[in-house]
Amino acid sequence: MAPSDHDCPLSRKLRTHMPLARADLAILADLHARRRTYPAGADMIFEGQAAHPLYILYEGWASSYKLLADGTRQILDFQIPGDSLGLNSMLFQTADHNIEPITDIVASEIIIGDVAGFYASSPTLATALLWAAARDQAMVVEHLINVGRRDAQRRTAHFLLELGARLILVGRGTRQGYDCPLSQYLLADALGLTAEHTNRVLRQLRQDGLVTFRDGRVVFDDLEGLIKLADFDMGYLDHGVLLR
Amino acid sequence: MAPSDHDCPLSRKLRTHMPLARADLAILADLHARRRTYPAGADMIFEGQAAHPLYILYEGWASSYKLLADGTRQILDFQIPGDSLGLNSMLFQTADHNIEPITDIVASEIIIGDVAGFYASSPTLATALLWAAARDQAMVVEHLINVGRRDAQRRTAHFLLELGARLILVGRGTRQGYDCPLSQYLLADALGLTAEHTNRVLRQLRQDGLVTFRDGRVVFDDLEGLIKLADFDMGYLDHGVLLR
Repeated sequence: MAPSDHDCPLSRKLRTHMPLARADLAILADLHARRRTYPAGADMIFEGQAAHPLYILYEGWASSYKLLADGTRQILDFQIPGDSLGLNSMLFQTADHNIEPITDIVASEIIIGDVAGFYASSPTLATALLWAAARDQAMVVEHLINVGRRDAQRRTAHFLLELGARLILVGRGTRQGYDCPLSQYLLADALGLTAEHTNRVLRQLRQDGLVTFRDGRVVFDDLEGLIKLADFDMGYLDHGVLLR
Repeated sequence: MAPSDHDCPLSRKLRTHMPLARADLAILADLHARRRTYPAGADMIFEGQAAHPLYILYEGWASSYKLLADGTRQILDFQIPGDSLGLNSMLFQTADHNIEPITDIVASEIIIGDVAGFYASSPTLATALLWAAARDQAMVVEHLINVGRRDAQRRTAHFLLELGARLILVGRGTRQGYDCPLSQYLLADALGLTAEHTNRVLRQLRQDGLVTFRDGRVVFDDLEGLIKLADFDMGYLDHGVLLR
């Protein structure tokens, strides 16, 4: 059977949280039908933007980030297929961060009126979207802990494991590894490290036989060892056992 | 006029986002009527707890935190009057962090059925709560940037300004300063610093004539100077000009 619109990454993700009725799936399929391509490198949402739209990402990777006055950048998170872009600042007067595709992406634009409609027409879907927003927040919380309380090696290991767990959930990765378009610069700006430091840490993790990130692919050489090093507890992702 | 239930901190906070109808205010007053006291130091929600309740905080301060395997603690945020406790993990199978009162607090417990009811009976109130949840997330994002990209002095300055802006919003602070029950240990665990380092930074900020935190009170000695040092932009708090 060829994958249908009902197998879109968002649907896969939401169904791990709760069963969706035929009407809910039809709404998702309708969103999916509206998808189009957005180029890498062009901000889709920018800090200070009023009344910005919301997007559902189907293919490719994006990043949410803030720029500081001194020119440094903190990446808050990366978005992968099935994730939303802009859900959390949708109710704000202006967006509080930027969102930029890292690769060319395929996404559907949703207007705030659509979302309001979900609450009337499909409370289940509305609740599932709230769950997804809460999960996004839980990841930012974990990134705060990463940067605040984990050394560079554990922090990097934790981040690569989290991406793995998220990608497995939407069918884009396995316990062996996943394709990853992130440069060392992007990874460094997410981890609060310099690119050079990130480089050294990745080399050490590889030499220790734990994980190899090279040529656009992350390979888990010793998944259990990496989980142990990072003290990786998937509870905050709120879905079943994927990596363990 | 004595403060009525309609002047409760939550109502003050939500009304900065959108006007609330009489029916919305009546729901808030009903929640308010159910308030009771919870003692300092006893977790109200703990990591891994299934089906935990949600609380609205009326008086006192709480903290949300995670413990790491090595015994260190990262404080995610402090909650002040008008904030919710547990809103973001309410839809999770289990809570992804702990919540503990720092002082004795007054709070109302809300069960998830109540919240579901809001979406039917008062979409405005439901949207206002979503906004409050998004604002909570924006603060965690800002704390990530604090720890990842700001040096200890700017980080501390930014944190004290954020607390000031939040407290002014609910009538618990002014441009001159605010009462603050945080110990150096709590502040350190929020900032990702040691207590000794936090101490040194606070002394330096005081000697520079910017801000004094002593005897349970934060005094803005030079508010404009502090805002400039911290590069503090209130946009992420999504309410009007309070500190500027």
